[in-house]
Amino acid sequence: MDPYAHISRPTLILNEERARRNIHRMVEKAKANHIRFRPHFKTHQSALIGDWFREEGVDAITVSSLSMARYFAAHGWEDITVAFPFNLREIETLWDLGQKVHLELLVESTEAVDFLEKQYLRNLDLWIKIDAGANRTGIKSENIPGILAVAERITASRHLNFKGILSHYGQTYKAGTAEDAAKYYVEANQKMKIIQSALRKAGFRKTAISVGDTPGCSILGNLGKVDEIRPGNFVFFDATQLRIGACREEDIAVAAACPVVARHPERDEVIIYGGAVHLSKEFFLENGNTSFGNVAFPRADGWSARIQGAYVRSISQEHGIIHLPTKTMNQVKVGDLLMILPVHSCLTVAALGEYTTLEGEKIPTMVTQLSDQAERDRGESENEQDQADYSDYSSVF
Amino acid sequence: MDPYAHISRPTLILNEERARRNIHRMVEKAKANHIRFRPHFKTHQSALIGDWFREEGVDAITVSSLSMARYFAAHGWEDITVAFPFNLREIETLWDLGQKVHLELLVESTEAVDFLEKQYLRNLDLWIKIDAGANRTGIKSENIPGILAVAERITASRHLNFKGILSHYGQTYKAGTAEDAAKYYVEANQKMKIIQSALRKAGFRKTAISVGDTPGCSILGNLGKVDEIRPGNFVFFDATQLRIGACREEDIAVAAACPVVARHPERDEVIIYGGAVHLSKEFFLENGNTSFGNVAFPRADGWSARIQGAYVRSISQEHGIIHLPTKTMNQVKVGDLLMILPVHSCLTVAALGEYTTLEGEKIPTMVTQLSDQAERDRGESENEQDQADYSDYSSVF
Repeated sequence: MDPYAHISRPTLILNEERARRNIHRMVEKAKANHIRFRPHFKTHQSALIGDWFREEGVDAITVSSLSMARYFAAHGWEDITVAFPFNLREIETLWDLGQKVHLELLVESTEAVDFLEKQYLRNLDLWIKIDAGANRTGIKSENIPGILAVAERITASRHLNFKGILSHYGQTYKAGTAEDAAKYYVEANQKMKIIQSALRKAGFRKTAISVGDTPGCSILGNLGKVDEIRPGNFVFFDATQLRIGACREEDIAVAAACPVVARHPERDEVIIYGGAVHLSKEFFLENGNTSFGNVAFPRADGWSARIQGAYVRSISQEHGIIHLPTKTMNQVKVGDLLMILPVHSCLTVAALGEYTTLEGEKIPTMVTQLSDQAERDRGESENEQDQADYSDYSSVF
Repeated sequence: MDPYAHISRPTLILNEERARRNIHRMVEKAKANHIRFRPHFKTHQSALIGDWFREEGVDAITVSSLSMARYFAAHGWEDITVAFPFNLREIETLWDLGQKVHLELLVESTEAVDFLEKQYLRNLDLWIKIDAGANRTGIKSENIPGILAVAERITASRHLNFKGILSHYGQTYKAGTAEDAAKYYVEANQKMKIIQSALRKAGFRKTAISVGDTPGCSILGNLGKVDEIRPGNFVFFDATQLRIGACREEDIAVAAACPVVARHPERDEVIIYGGAVHLSKEFFLENGNTSFGNVAFPRADGWSARIQGAYVRSISQEHGIIHLPTKTMNQVKVGDLLMILPVHSCLTVAALGEYTTLEGEKIPTMVTQLSDQAERDRGESENEQDQADYSDYSSVF
């Protein structure tokens, strides 16, 4: 039986068995390393897939926004780190959510600490966000005085609690090989240990270290002396992780099924219904080409091995242009499906917003449910405007 | 009064006056040229904004998918061109929608025509999709025999009607200057006229020409001897159109308001809450830099002129990294908003899914309403599986 007979539009196919295996493997690795596992849920964004983690004993999670924290809090998660520099403008959401679940937030400036000290009058765990080489955000790991200043400011507060230092080793995504990614992870860990020592000398005896990135956590067996890991992408992996060497091809758990709508044999290309709004515009360089995804054939059990030499060459709002090797052009007809292994599964999940398992079951995400939530949010914020206790906070902007 | 006091998350701000002015101007230009105006609604994707076009007398529209056609059909639009190569796998949707509204579809192969001839037994208007230089899809304009073959196949059918030739001049987006964009448009029009003449000689007396791209239609006063234009992006314009010279800065009608969450004065950068899932990963090269958007300050009347030298340097799932000139660093605090003029407004609209006008009114799009629609679709397709009259069509795959 063709599991894809009823697929007519770009559809995110999920191999549940692979995803569960990926989860199980990371749970076991964290246990073997005696490290707390706080997986990042921004990859799958789904309450149901969250339950697969719960079945493996996971009880604490990471998210990338307060909106996402709210979604998972509504689905029974009570211990949530929001791994994003605290956004001052969401103080109302924090007041609301902080009374329902245990939240841990990130700060990287004394300004943010001062704001929370004055504007959020409950106990709150804070991590200092460290830039250990990713060059995105956080206090540079070499800036020990800056880190100390924030730690001291947190500790000076009666209700804020300094939990530790936290980093995302985004540099491992730029690694050309698994060896490089492993090296970047180990080097970043060393930077975190240096900060921890400096803080200890300054009197901060309990400084936890939280790290995490899928390449480092997937490639290494020994994750080092850290307290917590927060990888997310490993649940599905993707073409980028495969390129880095952080997974095997048979670990990739999602692919976008896209209808072929036109053939251009004279230039070895076919056009798929599958564009930026379905796959995202994330790309990488592979064999000298800009690629927006790897390509496989649909199979009864999911999808084939990648078609060697095939790639998504270009992408616009709804169209994707696929380059195929000349010898495979004749195997693809208008009306067929091609399976796209995404460059970055997190973004493709966010774009498509819903999974279809190989068994045909639909699994929603928070994106699918956003319209309901937006309605509720609007209702709430209209009510809040009538409440005197919130009106102070809007005046700070 | 600060119109943005209540904005806490990335929010798409719409200047309604500018959008209405942009619509009015294009309506007037089409009238002056005696050309049918069939605007592309994939840019705004909103029933309410569609009404602004209706108020200007527009009664026919273009969309990029059957899903979008269904959305606008549900909002009273009865004459819809789906400007995307017909997707054979959506024959059921076509049967359903084709009985409710007048649809015009695109084909570019005899296979697609044969499929429709056999599988869709109602009258249907078809356009042949021409590649007049964009190199995305369509039959190459030079391939007159190929175009004739498809036209003949359509005409041979009792129920299919050959409407004309249609092209999207995507090459104008690659123009470095307004003059170049205008030249590309005129050259592409000449190619379309050559095809029209060849078809006339072969006995096809009524071959309409439908073209459209925002740069060409915005820059030129004289749009040439075509029958229909289908620009879409002009309703809002964006940083790309500004770069090409297709609009003035004061024509740009949307900007994403994004909270500043961290400052890095040592590297002249700030971090915004605003990433790929809000802005899309569309970028262009400007002054030698990869830019994911222009940057402006919020103002009571919308936003300021672009900050010279500022740009969105990098983007990840939820973070944006903004480069600011050293002298403006001190004007931006954590908790402030920055306004991002998107590289490609269509994709930013699709990502954010909802507008907030300067007056604070929320305007939904089909994205906001997708979750409801997905529910309905699922119900429908479950019903359809029980209906014998559809079961034939799924067997062709």
